[in-house]
Amino acid sequence: MSAQNPQVRDLSPQEVAQGIEDGRFVLVDVREPNETAVERFPHEWMPFGAFGKSVALARKHGLRDIVAIGSVQRPKLLDFRLDWTTLRLLPRLARLYRGGDDHLLSGVAELLDEYGFRLRSVADVAPEIVVPAGILGAHRPAAEDEADIVFGLDLLRALGPFDVGQAVAISARRVLAVEAAEGTTGMLTRLAKLRKSGRLKLADRAGVLVKAPKPGQSRRIDLPAIGAETVAQAAAAGLRGIAVEAGGTIVADAAAMVRAADQAGLFLVGVPAREEGRR
Amino acid sequence: MSAQNPQVRDLSPQEVAQGIEDGRFVLVDVREPNETAVERFPHEWMPFGAFGKSVALARKHGLRDIVAIGSVQRPKLLDFRLDWTTLRLLPRLARLYRGGDDHLLSGVAELLDEYGFRLRSVADVAPEIVVPAGILGAHRPAAEDEADIVFGLDLLRALGPFDVGQAVAISARRVLAVEAAEGTTGMLTRLAKLRKSGRLKLADRAGVLVKAPKPGQSRRIDLPAIGAETVAQAAAAGLRGIAVEAGGTIVADAAAMVRAADQAGLFLVGVPAREEGRR
Repeated sequence: MSAQNPQVRDLSPQEVAQGIEDGRFVLVDVREPNETAVERFPHEWMPFGAFGKSVALARKHGLRDIVAIGSVQRPKLLDFRLDWTTLRLLPRLARLYRGGDDHLLSGVAELLDEYGFRLRSVADVAPEIVVPAGILGAHRPAAEDEADIVFGLDLLRALGPFDVGQAVAISARRVLAVEAAEGTTGMLTRLAKLRKSGRLKLADRAGVLVKAPKPGQSRRIDLPAIGAETVAQAAAAGLRGIAVEAGGTIVADAAAMVRAADQAGLFLVGVPAREEGRR
Repeated sequence: MSAQNPQVRDLSPQEVAQGIEDGRFVLVDVREPNETAVERFPHEWMPFGAFGKSVALARKHGLRDIVAIGSVQRPKLLDFRLDWTTLRLLPRLARLYRGGDDHLLSGVAELLDEYGFRLRSVADVAPEIVVPAGILGAHRPAAEDEADIVFGLDLLRALGPFDVGQAVAISARRVLAVEAAEGTTGMLTRLAKLRKSGRLKLADRAGVLVKAPKPGQSRRIDLPAIGAETVAQAAAAGLRGIAVEAGGTIVADAAAMVRAADQAGLFLVGVPAREEGRR
């Protein structure tokens, strides 16, 4: 969460870190308080689900803007630390739980809006970490890969109304894998195993990982993220490259990712988003 | 493959077996000749991909109808045992390989048609093994499950143009898993692991396996199949039940499957197919 005054829009990640050092921002961690890395910064621990406590805590620090970083595995409603506010919101939260992740996160964003907070996209706060359009490394997708990328983006778009996942793997217009609750790492690990076991027979290097935000998804939370690790997993799965939606995907260390891709012989490409369906 | 004359439409599985014993049918196995179970019946081994040899072999026995039983994992084109006919067909086969399984199988069916064979649905030959509409066992889906079943069938329909897979797992309108190259067993094994590891947090029993032929799929090949093993896998994945398309799903031993479901506390339901998109 960031304090009300600073123009977070123009801050670099370094400045965000500095802002935290200066006490203009407060890190709020929803995990169990066992991360010593957080403790050298101004911070607060927030029992997951204790919404009333979080609101009080934010007001104490004069916070208004919220930037969600990283991903949260959806906890069971029964595991929530209830306070009175959460208890009152429980029927509404239960409704949010009936549906996919985007349904849940959009509902939480709405809730925060109602409580006077402003949920900001991490891409908005730190535009440097957003993947730009174009070829990112030394390797280029072939015409065949481009056809697979278009196919994959079309598939992700068709999955939109069902709020499934943000990634698919395609080889020669054949769908190798669709990501759902297992996440991108789970999907790529599975692909690597399927190929290693001979259950999935393909040319030595075949297929593309295509990753994009869900078509109706708010760009303020849970943007798809990639990095050097994604490249390593895609290489282990025998893929030829990675295509992501430019402007809608974040990467913490782009230089490390590009280096990893160049070394592994994978292409990396940011594909401009189509206009419809964005918000 | 069955000989031309008998009315296979009205045969039971037992009669099919008898027909094989009597020499009216010939089992053709495309695997390596190491299955001794096949050897007590009139049979031929067909090197995979040796299409010219298969045609000659079929003509030798006066075969015209072909019933495909079981599933074939698509081999690499490079692993094909080539004969002259296959060699001539290679460019066409290469095109069939660019796409999903249904694209490939429909193309092979067309090819067989052109060579004067008639590809018959196993459902057509042995209607007893087709799952009927209605509740199959002792347990019934709740209203909540029914909503998930409709959601799952809608999702499978939306996936149709992309020729992805035949199964999804849904819990409270959230997509837990989508089957692609890993197959239904792979998908259910993954779900079981995700839940066991705590990566996926759900109520003790939650979610439905929904399985149906692809909307544009020929009903003559690769019909989705379920059985007692599917029930065991769904139970291990913590699901509440299984819904399949009535008339479009086959089960080898329905009694064993229903027994397994009743014991495991899972519901089993055949949902009537919607009319559009069938052929």
